[in-house]
Amino acid sequence: MSTAQTEPAATAAAAPNLQDILAAHERIRAQIHRTPVLTSESLNAMTGAQFFFKCENLQKTGSFKFRGATNAVFSLSDEEARRGIVTVSSGNHGAAISLAARRRGVPAWIVMPRNAPRAKREAVEAYGGQVTECEYNMESRDAVCKSVQDRTGAILIHPYNNPRVIAGQGTAAVELLEQVPDLDMVIAPVSGGGLLSGIAIASKSLRPQIRVIGAEPKNADDAFRSLASGKIEPTAKTETIADGLRAVLCPLTFSILQKNVDEIAMVTEEEILSAMRLLWERMKLIVEPSGAVPAAAAIHGKIPARDKRIGIVLSGGNLDLDQIPFVRKQV
Amino acid sequence: MSTAQTEPAATAAAAPNLQDILAAHERIRAQIHRTPVLTSESLNAMTGAQFFFKCENLQKTGSFKFRGATNAVFSLSDEEARRGIVTVSSGNHGAAISLAARRRGVPAWIVMPRNAPRAKREAVEAYGGQVTECEYNMESRDAVCKSVQDRTGAILIHPYNNPRVIAGQGTAAVELLEQVPDLDMVIAPVSGGGLLSGIAIASKSLRPQIRVIGAEPKNADDAFRSLASGKIEPTAKTETIADGLRAVLCPLTFSILQKNVDEIAMVTEEEILSAMRLLWERMKLIVEPSGAVPAAAAIHGKIPARDKRIGIVLSGGNLDLDQIPFVRKQV
Repeated sequence: MSTAQTEPAATAAAAPNLQDILAAHERIRAQIHRTPVLTSESLNAMTGAQFFFKCENLQKTGSFKFRGATNAVFSLSDEEARRGIVTVSSGNHGAAISLAARRRGVPAWIVMPRNAPRAKREAVEAYGGQVTECEYNMESRDAVCKSVQDRTGAILIHPYNNPRVIAGQGTAAVELLEQVPDLDMVIAPVSGGGLLSGIAIASKSLRPQIRVIGAEPKNADDAFRSLASGKIEPTAKTETIADGLRAVLCPLTFSILQKNVDEIAMVTEEEILSAMRLLWERMKLIVEPSGAVPAAAAIHGKIPARDKRIGIVLSGGNLDLDQIPFVRKQV
Repeated sequence: MSTAQTEPAATAAAAPNLQDILAAHERIRAQIHRTPVLTSESLNAMTGAQFFFKCENLQKTGSFKFRGATNAVFSLSDEEARRGIVTVSSGNHGAAISLAARRRGVPAWIVMPRNAPRAKREAVEAYGGQVTECEYNMESRDAVCKSVQDRTGAILIHPYNNPRVIAGQGTAAVELLEQVPDLDMVIAPVSGGGLLSGIAIASKSLRPQIRVIGAEPKNADDAFRSLASGKIEPTAKTETIADGLRAVLCPLTFSILQKNVDEIAMVTEEEILSAMRLLWERMKLIVEPSGAVPAAAAIHGKIPARDKRIGIVLSGGNLDLDQIPFVRKQV
């Protein structure tokens, strides 16, 4: 594929800095929700910490992904944008790209497996994306993506291996630190590492003494193992209810996390479910399993929380309400 | 019972005015959440209106009731407060009184039927209230309440037949109109009428041209019939999923609504469920059935919404997550 058809080169050298993130914030500010930061006395009382929940589940399209997608789509030149956007994420990034492209007035092709859940297809279509089917394997996915590019000239916007996407995700931390300047820690989920990279760069730049923590399921602990071994480790086992956290780091995000993240905390499936239910019950917020992972780490003692002021990114709220995982028996 | 043991005389003459509501706001400001106002492009697109959702489901104790309860409890003299508080609501008002009393450092007795749902008892107890059992009828309830008063000297704080409670509920509209000054309409649910009374007085005082609308289930349409007939009508049928909206007006709230409310909109059970599910799905907010009634009226064409800027009070978010009414089949 020609370089004109691809996203900006995603090498370690291309990591965005604070200026890129602030510029992204200016670029997307009118398009996104400035999400509220909410607190819960009962969760504070359970842990002795002071939690500040950055509610990206209340972001447009239901997740932080709309920040990065909007920054990437609106960073394109008119000539580039006109060709349309293609991406391979069937989840929150696909929905986010669909709406961002519609806002820009250009088409978006979202490559997803034939057997993807109906709810995910419908979300993409509701935001104006064109679902483009592939088989349930990486080879088919990449081949279909390539054929869309060849046919249309569409620009690929990867969900995290893209500095503009990372800069967009970092705007959540810019807002959080405006809303609550004196945080001791910030915790975000880590999967491909786009969100955590953006959060880490923005947080360490704006407040050098802050501790930046990634949270991931024990059952998808590749970020933990990668930072421990010093090289990108594959996921050994991806059976986790946190279905948004199954991706693995890329060289770009790995190098950013190596420099800017203090610690990766891991949580069990039971801890994720328990935290998710607590967020629903106590905070009246619909948070998807992946979005509850950082809260699970904070609530279930995976980080030293007592007497600390902790920013927690509730990253998304998209799930099938007919398949709520913690609901016991329903009549 | 002696007058010292009762709440302020609740007659039509005692209706709070804007000054009372602003004073209430000063009194409770540090105790409550200033709840966010959220918007939804997709709900706007469905209706052609611009909705501004005042999220009292995110209020402490999960409903607006904490505003009125806090104002009433903190308006008591030290001598009065010391005797403790008693109330007969087993729902959101009971939970709100429990926490407000705990904040004041005084006991709260919450009279509720022996067969009340476990979730409601647990909520009251979690906030420090003392559950006091009665039989499932008004005579027993009032007798048990009276015996608590006789034994302890506790002050009764009624859920809506109380000007201080009404003034507290009105603070939600003060905030809403600070957050979004140029509303054409505001809609709140109506049951006993405490919330709608406070909202109506504050809204009409701060913005005389605003239209104030109450919303109630067709199956509990006593407010509609009362305002139509000019006298308080009993509820004919109280089989509604909106279990917080089964109370009837009292002379105080009736007279306030007669003067300050433009219209009562009614919704079916299906419309309540549909609106509730939309709020969960599109806005990622947990709203209880009663809390979804105004949104149901606005979404389902019960009021002229197109091109209007409409404030909608999402009044509460408390429900048993194991009994979500719209969830179809759960495995």
